[in-house]
Amino acid sequence: MQVAVVLYDGVTALDAVGPYEVLRAMPGTEIRMVAHAPGPVMTDSGVLTLGASHSYADTPAPDVVLVPGSSRGTQAAMNDQELTGWLVSVHNTTRWTTSVCTGSLILGAAGLLQGLPATTHWLAQDLLPLVGAVPSPSSRIVHSGRIATAAGVSAGIDLALWLAGELCGREVAESIQLGIEYDPQPPFDAGHPSKASAAVVAATRAAMTASA
Amino acid sequence: MQVAVVLYDGVTALDAVGPYEVLRAMPGTEIRMVAHAPGPVMTDSGVLTLGASHSYADTPAPDVVLVPGSSRGTQAAMNDQELTGWLVSVHNTTRWTTSVCTGSLILGAAGLLQGLPATTHWLAQDLLPLVGAVPSPSSRIVHSGRIATAAGVSAGIDLALWLAGELCGREVAESIQLGIEYDPQPPFDAGHPSKASAAVVAATRAAMTASA
Repeated sequence: MQVAVVLYDGVTALDAVGPYEVLRAMPGTEIRMVAHAPGPVMTDSGVLTLGASHSYADTPAPDVVLVPGSSRGTQAAMNDQELTGWLVSVHNTTRWTTSVCTGSLILGAAGLLQGLPATTHWLAQDLLPLVGAVPSPSSRIVHSGRIATAAGVSAGIDLALWLAGELCGREVAESIQLGIEYDPQPPFDAGHPSKASAAVVAATRAAMTASA
Repeated sequence: MQVAVVLYDGVTALDAVGPYEVLRAMPGTEIRMVAHAPGPVMTDSGVLTLGASHSYADTPAPDVVLVPGSSRGTQAAMNDQELTGWLVSVHNTTRWTTSVCTGSLILGAAGLLQGLPATTHWLAQDLLPLVGAVPSPSSRIVHSGRIATAAGVSAGIDLALWLAGELCGREVAESIQLGIEYDPQPPFDAGHPSKASAAVVAATRAAMTASA
């Protein structure tokens, strides 16, 4: 099985690396990091680069595609016709076409979410209808047909474990979960706007809107 | 505040990128990815590279150091005297010296865990006494003085949120948690050997021992 994780300028590293760490552990899987060309791709921190191993052109038929999100590069990626054209093409033969965070807006820009339920980062839910998708803001993972979208950033880990279960069965997925010791114990319980205080939601909205 | 995330050949990407995504969001923080020299560092998949932004030599006094683990490069990193010498030196002035997964064995090789409680990946707990540390296998985060160690791979996210709370206060840490939408909902509950089935524990032990 071949898994392609998409990289583009400004990508949020954890959106890509969380699922990568899960999906690469599936037995018999070749993981690829794909971009316009092999080489380093700058993330949204402006500090960390992730290396692309392959170009889109060299990856014409992945079994699984995962499009991560970004805090500053989503719009440019949505307008990148080489990327969206590649997504349309490979979706013809993928087993799963997936996204994390605002990656769903990129799938949407490629026309792949028309009329489908989908999710994204909680701050970007309002943008889903602009690409024809139906927001499902209370779900961390939303799937319909061969498309699955996840909520913001860290939700990609949950999505990837779910995908591993779909593709390889529950025991394999559980073994991957144990391998990455994913027994989450966050020290606070503020990971969703329904759980965080109003002050924390307001501060986060202001900070993230300013940086976008 | 300056945060240095260590990279070395064979590092496990999520060990580094989970904490990076949290710690870089602390207000007024400069995040650095440090290695022998700036440039790409190959992770343990043999596919994904993470880019180092600075050398150890150019980073003489970080406020926070985080050493990620590896499924195949820990021993070499423990024997890397440039790395362990740098850890000893910077630990003199850090506010926190930290690790994820087998990164604690690297801190231990630098002599920083002598007599201290610490943790690591569940499969590597037995190795902690070899570097003078006292295993604390039931804890996801263990701290003593200015040193904090986390359990395997994904535990780095929990560690980093805890650190953000220590360094910047609870509201800031909660805002970072909301920013990365860290509201974990794993589809399975097998993230610790105390929770996984005996068959899954055995399969994971066999697979990870074979790849190490």
